Amino acid sequence: MATQLPEREYDDRLDQIRGRIVDAEADAGVWFGATSIEYLTGFDHIQTERPVCLAVTPESAEIVVPRLEVERVEPNPRIDAVHHYHDYPGGRPIALAAEMLDGLGVESVVADADGAPGTMGYEGPSLSEFVAVDKQSWVTRMRWEKTDAEIDLIRESARWGNLAHRYLADYTEVGAHPATVSQRASMEASRAMLDTLGDEYVARTRGSGPAFAGYITGPQTRLPHGHTANRRLQEGDVLVTGAAANVDGYHSELERTMFLGEPSDEQVHYFELMCEMQEIAIDALGPGVPIADVDDAVRDYVEEQGVADLYQHHVGHNIGMDGHEPPYIDQGWGDHCESEYTSYDAEDAVMQPGNVWTIEPGLYTDEYGYRHSDTIAITEDGIEWLTYFPRDLEGNIIDVE
Amino acid sequence: MATQLPEREYDDRLDQIRGRIVDAEADAGVWFGATSIEYLTGFDHIQTERPVCLAVTPESAEIVVPRLEVERVEPNPRIDAVHHYHDYPGGRPIALAAEMLDGLGVESVVADADGAPGTMGYEGPSLSEFVAVDKQSWVTRMRWEKTDAEIDLIRESARWGNLAHRYLADYTEVGAHPATVSQRASMEASRAMLDTLGDEYVARTRGSGPAFAGYITGPQTRLPHGHTANRRLQEGDVLVTGAAANVDGYHSELERTMFLGEPSDEQVHYFELMCEMQEIAIDALGPGVPIADVDDAVRDYVEEQGVADLYQHHVGHNIGMDGHEPPYIDQGWGDHCESEYTSYDAEDAVMQPGNVWTIEPGLYTDEYGYRHSDTIAITEDGIEWLTYFPRDLEGNIIDVE
Repeated sequence: MATQLPEREYDDRLDQIRGRIVDAEADAGVWFGATSIEYLTGFDHIQTERPVCLAVTPESAEIVVPRLEVERVEPNPRIDAVHHYHDYPGGRPIALAAEMLDGLGVESVVADADGAPGTMGYEGPSLSEFVAVDKQSWVTRMRWEKTDAEIDLIRESARWGNLAHRYLADYTEVGAHPATVSQRASMEASRAMLDTLGDEYVARTRGSGPAFAGYITGPQTRLPHGHTANRRLQEGDVLVTGAAANVDGYHSELERTMFLGEPSDEQVHYFELMCEMQEIAIDALGPGVPIADVDDAVRDYVEEQGVADLYQHHVGHNIGMDGHEPPYIDQGWGDHCESEYTSYDAEDAVMQPGNVWTIEPGLYTDEYGYRHSDTIAITEDGIEWLTYFPRDLEGNIIDVE
Repeated sequence: MATQLPEREYDDRLDQIRGRIVDAEADAGVWFGATSIEYLTGFDHIQTERPVCLAVTPESAEIVVPRLEVERVEPNPRIDAVHHYHDYPGGRPIALAAEMLDGLGVESVVADADGAPGTMGYEGPSLSEFVAVDKQSWVTRMRWEKTDAEIDLIRESARWGNLAHRYLADYTEVGAHPATVSQRASMEASRAMLDTLGDEYVARTRGSGPAFAGYITGPQTRLPHGHTANRRLQEGDVLVTGAAANVDGYHSELERTMFLGEPSDEQVHYFELMCEMQEIAIDALGPGVPIADVDDAVRDYVEEQGVADLYQHHVGHNIGMDGHEPPYIDQGWGDHCESEYTSYDAEDAVMQPGNVWTIEPGLYTDEYGYRHSDTIAITEDGIEWLTYFPRDLEGNIIDVE
């Protein structure tokens, strides 16, 4: 049971980054993005209008934060100095970052952005007003392939997502309110998770949780991004569920198409088509496989079955610290890697051990939607299923008393 | 009881925008931001790696969406044509937006960004590769002053936030788990809200809810952005609560410093200082008041009281569709408006009727934090309190049996 990322993972990441800084002949790497800063140091914070700026040199790491983050970052063993401004916009975060870089003897940096992002209306100077800036997206790219320790956390996330999903199925009945069933299942799975993990549980400011399960119900299911309607559950409802848990900042994704009572022949038909699409995608996965090929395989099948117009989104996405991460399993991924708009190349168009995918091709008729989502890791020689709730029809019918 | 924004509000907003497009001598306004698109049209969607692009001309409005949003946007009465690509990155959203603009006879646009934002790893072309682009942040600025109809929604939000907060206080007891108390209060307030509003309830993809209450407890309260610890409630705990509800996409903010059992003399001392700081801020509010003056008034007081080092963030922020919105009640707001980094000027440094503020100056000792937050609207001749949970000491002590 892995519930915390080992400290050495952060050290390894910083080592990698320091190698890249040297290779780039820059004096420092700079990050303004909260997820990247957490990835490199373990310091998590909510990205708001108040900029945070991490600087990493071959010898040191320092950070600029607003006053309200000082006590949260000071204990971090990988950050050698904490500089703070009071608040936004009265503080001078970018000027302070420039002073920090000057104190580090830095004249040129490679940064994830030329200044802080415009979150919650932030506006301010570019970093390049103060220091020479080249762009990099190293952390974003490093996150594509998870280490064994990261996959352990996603596997643990899948366990608690599965429990939340089991509670959701158990509490689902005709006449119940979807929002209430979802909130009750989430509450009880979260409680079980917190009581089980105890002191091993790490609260992270990023993401929700600890555990969650919910659904789109009835006619809303025909919309891939439908909402939880304020309408009691009825016999005959199709349900498209979603469940997850946050384990030290890592996430999994479990979704099922379920039926409240016996499904109609038409519903069974689309359910089985959808299962076949998901199996085709999963069978196509593996190290060295062109990512776009997996979407193409599903497209070929839906065309052959005459349901291409019901196939409204691609197969899936990478998942980890964020719910959606690149790469995307889409027919265009290979061309995208070779386009002028990315720093990727042909090697980035192929699946690698450590990728963790959601596999979730769906079908959307005029009446209902059909989608399972499973979280699956690419290994050295194949795949590993991380989610495990029953996928078959029988396991997804909720009896009506 | 107002639970939905009247349709005429969207028409008024589009009328204003069309006036600005003409004044700017542009052919169209363009938006890639989900909140701005919702503000102008009522079409809400989750901002992901899949770009959405709204174009507004003096005569028409058209939109580019991924396939999975088509059925959600098509019924919108203010959008005259929906263009779609299949998915990212195989689709060509920006090229399709350029074709849409060409079809509208547009040669120059004023846009909220020169292409789609990098959400969830999106990368793609600039819009200016296809058409002349100037920048504008009209919607962001328009949102500063709420209409009466918007304030009605925030007032309604405050009612349900208050109920969630009442449940939170009622379920709080020694030995209870903070996450479970929070989830139970949120579940029951959400149920009451949904059952009361019934068909008048509008689900929005943006924001959480429907109703929420939770807290930071015990030693975590000393951190303004602390987390809900996995630690049972103990007699003597300081609690810093937070409650809100989502009413047609609008939010309020209610926070209280509460005590589980009788507070110590030192705790009462800081509680009373904090209340005085909040009252000083609220007394300073009003139409025509320089925004920075409100933060300055609180700073003068904490300096006079010798607790300036415990004052770790500014007074508050505007609130509405987002939880944090500019302007910010910060000593630097006036200088910021006149800086080269904004499109604002001296007029924007002053409070206006329709601003809705959170007023939440806090004190953070080595042991605990102390902060109330109330949501207060600026009217033509004064202020209106929208949140109303008791603020005094007696109303914030939870008896221990």
